[in-house]
Amino acid sequence: MLKQRWDKLASAMEASHVSGVALMPGPNMFYLTGLSMGLSERPTLLVVGREGTVSLIMPQLERQKGEAVADCLQRQGVQARFHVYSYTDEAGPHKAFEEAFHGKTGTWALEYTALRMLEYSLMKAVLGEFAWVDAGEIMKGLRVVKDTGELEAMQEAARLADMGAGIARNLLTPGKRATEIALEIEWKLRQEGADRVYMSLATGPDTAIPHAGTSSRVIESGDLAWLDLCVNVRGYWSDITRTYAIGGIPEELRRIYEIVLEAQERARLNAKPGMTGAQVDALAREVIAGHGYGHRFIHRTGHGLGLEIHEEPYIVATNHRPLPAGSTFTIEPGIYIPGKGGVRIEDDVVLTGEGARSLTQYPRNLLDM
Amino acid sequence: MLKQRWDKLASAMEASHVSGVALMPGPNMFYLTGLSMGLSERPTLLVVGREGTVSLIMPQLERQKGEAVADCLQRQGVQARFHVYSYTDEAGPHKAFEEAFHGKTGTWALEYTALRMLEYSLMKAVLGEFAWVDAGEIMKGLRVVKDTGELEAMQEAARLADMGAGIARNLLTPGKRATEIALEIEWKLRQEGADRVYMSLATGPDTAIPHAGTSSRVIESGDLAWLDLCVNVRGYWSDITRTYAIGGIPEELRRIYEIVLEAQERARLNAKPGMTGAQVDALAREVIAGHGYGHRFIHRTGHGLGLEIHEEPYIVATNHRPLPAGSTFTIEPGIYIPGKGGVRIEDDVVLTGEGARSLTQYPRNLLDM
Repeated sequence: MLKQRWDKLASAMEASHVSGVALMPGPNMFYLTGLSMGLSERPTLLVVGREGTVSLIMPQLERQKGEAVADCLQRQGVQARFHVYSYTDEAGPHKAFEEAFHGKTGTWALEYTALRMLEYSLMKAVLGEFAWVDAGEIMKGLRVVKDTGELEAMQEAARLADMGAGIARNLLTPGKRATEIALEIEWKLRQEGADRVYMSLATGPDTAIPHAGTSSRVIESGDLAWLDLCVNVRGYWSDITRTYAIGGIPEELRRIYEIVLEAQERARLNAKPGMTGAQVDALAREVIAGHGYGHRFIHRTGHGLGLEIHEEPYIVATNHRPLPAGSTFTIEPGIYIPGKGGVRIEDDVVLTGEGARSLTQYPRNLLDM
Repeated sequence: MLKQRWDKLASAMEASHVSGVALMPGPNMFYLTGLSMGLSERPTLLVVGREGTVSLIMPQLERQKGEAVADCLQRQGVQARFHVYSYTDEAGPHKAFEEAFHGKTGTWALEYTALRMLEYSLMKAVLGEFAWVDAGEIMKGLRVVKDTGELEAMQEAARLADMGAGIARNLLTPGKRATEIALEIEWKLRQEGADRVYMSLATGPDTAIPHAGTSSRVIESGDLAWLDLCVNVRGYWSDITRTYAIGGIPEELRRIYEIVLEAQERARLNAKPGMTGAQVDALAREVIAGHGYGHRFIHRTGHGLGLEIHEEPYIVATNHRPLPAGSTFTIEPGIYIPGKGGVRIEDDVVLTGEGARSLTQYPRNLLDM
């Protein structure tokens, strides 16, 4: 799998005429090397030159991890001259940057939303003033279509998300607090193998705020609640939202539930490779607008999902690029009525020749209890 | 409390002749505003001008949080002209940067290990080429002495760390895996009110690696184990390490335990305000070297602790600055014998007129079971 990624990167560098890409710890470095590193005051940088050299600058403490990456890439047939340039705390990183960028000039692709003054200053110290472009543009082209291994991890993450939606159904009762329930869901999912869990469990009037967190408010009979749950397995995320009615809820909230469900199903059952993000967004939005709630659907219909919870492709009115087969994204329309409550239904889909296959499968009806 | 911090910042900006500081989401922004924001592709920047203006650049989505900060600072008597410059996704952040930096020139203090190309490019677009220095130098001077509220949060975090050390003692038994035990410790501490928990539970030969993670290896009778546990309460960290003997352990490991304990107590019982980090490091290091294990004590004696797990002041041979009363740091000597095992004992202390008062209190003897 890794070889294909490196081959695609080589073509992308060729097409964009950059001298190379410089990648920080994070999803792009993980995608190319499997290396999962944190950010610290000690810089780590993966420098991929278009001419076929790959340098990993890292602290001496971490050198073993770098050498393991070199071995792994070689075993997988990646054709690159791989070097680890490590540095001690006493010596500092300057010399390692000098070695990694030796003889290199031209335009570099940097991660605009990740590379810090720390790394930029070191690059400038060894390269002089240099031209740069955003590496995000190159990397998103590589990552948007998922391979079998990625889809397996995402399916497993989705299975755990489904499980979490079910656990919530058993726990949501008047008198409890969302914070307690959230902790219990996380605990059970991590025992089941979730590497990371991230969620918002909104109840009562808070459900009208799309990005509400989990509050310590006591749940009351007559509350609407929704759980927006992200589960990570082997680096890959799932992201599900389900809405629950705790006791009898007002008729208007029940009606908006049915509208959101109709919108979500219309987008999910009709999305196909080759449609644009804007077209899929419209599938959902037209239903909600048709019922007079267009002004209450205050976010995009979905976002790409994979190594990041938000990544390409975005399911939004401004995305006029066709969605490729093998891309994965959420479909999550919602209606939010300030002061009363809100509803969202979210699934994760992968586009195939037959349409959008949903990775999340938990029942989509209003979960009454 | 906040007013004092802003007054100190004003003096520090005066002394360093900068036009102002620009702070990213993270510990420095939290310290000055109580605002806890994540990093995303949408920039957030706190711009504090030496002349008395404070601008918070942030996405429209988050504007309410910014306005709450403005109110809070005003209520606390912070004398500053505070403005929130928010931007929509459609408009982008350029105009907000333009407004926040309008009419400002000179040298800016930036966070060298946090500010990204994203924010730097926006600053350059509105300021032109500009001179900058590391804001870390200014901010560490403010943060090193803890106030009462900070010490209360750290004491509560230390109480939970002590509790975690006790839970580990009950759970460490042959046949179990460290990964299961770690999850159970985290679960219990979060039920007790820990906001975040981070730990390494090393067993058997892995204890010889100072930064070993938590492995899924099955624990055996005769294992040494150590738990290095960090607990966060209201933004502030504790950091404890305790070492356990599961059944009878080899005589050499028992001996190095006694040496590490002697070293740790010598540093802890003799540290005083006015000593340098190097002097406190020497207190521990001399004991270990005196027993012939100097080459097996392969890290510094400690690090500052507070909003970050590693911060100033460092208890290391190269730190020749005096440690002020009210500073908080770890004392954590260790001996590591490759292939056999390692020992570390870590407490968190605050320097007072009487010496180093330990926030962590769990028994320090070798925890046999």
